[in-house]
Amino acid sequence: MSLSTSLAFLREADKLKSILRQSRVTFDPERRENDAEHSWHLALMAVVLAEYGPRGVDLLSVLRMVLVHDIVEIDAGDTFLYDEAHAASKAEREAAAADRLFGMLDEPLRGELRGAWEEFEEGRTPAARFARALDRLQPMLQNLYTDGASWRAHGIIAPQVRAKNGPPIRDGAPDLWAQAEAMLEDAVRRGWISEG
Amino acid sequence: MSLSTSLAFLREADKLKSILRQSRVTFDPERRENDAEHSWHLALMAVVLAEYGPRGVDLLSVLRMVLVHDIVEIDAGDTFLYDEAHAASKAEREAAAADRLFGMLDEPLRGELRGAWEEFEEGRTPAARFARALDRLQPMLQNLYTDGASWRAHGIIAPQVRAKNGPPIRDGAPDLWAQAEAMLEDAVRRGWISEG
Repeated sequence: MSLSTSLAFLREADKLKSILRQSRVTFDPERRENDAEHSWHLALMAVVLAEYGPRGVDLLSVLRMVLVHDIVEIDAGDTFLYDEAHAASKAEREAAAADRLFGMLDEPLRGELRGAWEEFEEGRTPAARFARALDRLQPMLQNLYTDGASWRAHGIIAPQVRAKNGPPIRDGAPDLWAQAEAMLEDAVRRGWISEG
Repeated sequence: MSLSTSLAFLREADKLKSILRQSRVTFDPERRENDAEHSWHLALMAVVLAEYGPRGVDLLSVLRMVLVHDIVEIDAGDTFLYDEAHAASKAEREAAAADRLFGMLDEPLRGELRGAWEEFEEGRTPAARFARALDRLQPMLQNLYTDGASWRAHGIIAPQVRAKNGPPIRDGAPDLWAQAEAMLEDAVRRGWISEG
C-alpha cells in the first residue's frame, strides 16, 4: 500500500464533515449535525454501551463499521430515514459511491473497508446488528433531547418512529429499545410528537 | 452500571460538537473544525494508517483513546498547540474536567475511559504513542490542505511546526513524520508558511 494513496483517501473523507443530517445537536436545536459528528458519537456509544449489544460482540468490528458506514454519503448525500421517495434509489447511489470512495485505497485496505461497509449494510453479523441499532438510536436520542426538533420539522408521528426504529434496535440491542420506547412515550405525553 | 447514567454521559458528550479548534476543514478554509469531527477523523486515520504505528499496536486501544481524548475540552476548552500562555494551566484545567466528565459514569466504565484518557496524556504505551502521533499529524494535514490557513492566521513559522510535531510523530509513526516533513518543506517553497 502506498502512503500517498491512503492520505488521499483520508483527505477525501474530510468531506464527511460537510454532509448535513436532519438530526440536531442537543445544545442548539437549530443546528443540524453532520455525518462526521454523528459517526464519532456512534463510535463513543459503541464503547459506552457495549454491554447492551449481542453477547461477545467484537467491538473493534463495530467501531470500524460505524467509522466508515456513512462515507458513501460524500457522493450519495444523506437520505432522511422517513423519506420514502429517495429510499428507492439509495442502494444504487450508495453502491456507486462505495466503488469510487473505497476504490481510492489500495488492497488490502480497499477490501477491508468496503467489506466493513457491506457488513453494516447487510446487518447479519452480531457486530453489524449492534452497529445498526446504535445508528437508529442516536438520531432518536438527538430528537428526544431537542423536544423532537427534526420530527416536528418533518411532521413525523410516533408510529413511524416505532416502525422504522423498533425492529433494528430491538434486534441489535433489546434493552436499549425498551428504554428508547419509554422515552418516546414520554415525548408523546409532553406533546413533542403525536400518535398521528 | 445503570443505563440512564451512560445515556446522561453520552448526552453531555454531544457538546464536543461545539468545541471549535484552530484547524480548518479542507473544503472551506474559513470554517474551523470541531473536536467531534477531529476525533472521528483521528479514528479513521488510526484504521487506515495502522501499519505505520508501532509493530503489533492494539488498534482497539488506539480507537478508544482517540474517541475520548478531547472530551475534557467540553469544560477546559481547546488549547491551541502553539499557545504557550495557556499551556501552563492546561493540565490542571483538564484534570478537573476529567473528574467531572468521566465521573458521570459508573464503574467500571468510569475507570476504563478515565484510564484511556490518562494513557493518552502520558503517552508511554505503543497505542498511546501512535494515538498522539495521529493527533499531531491530523491538524498538520488540515493546514497543508488549506494552504496553511490556521498557521497563517496565527503567524506560525515552520521551525515551530517541526519543534511541536516532529518529536511526537517521529516517536509514534516515524514514516508518517518523514512524509509530513517533506510536505512541510513543500509548503515553505510555496510560501504558505515561512522559515521565520
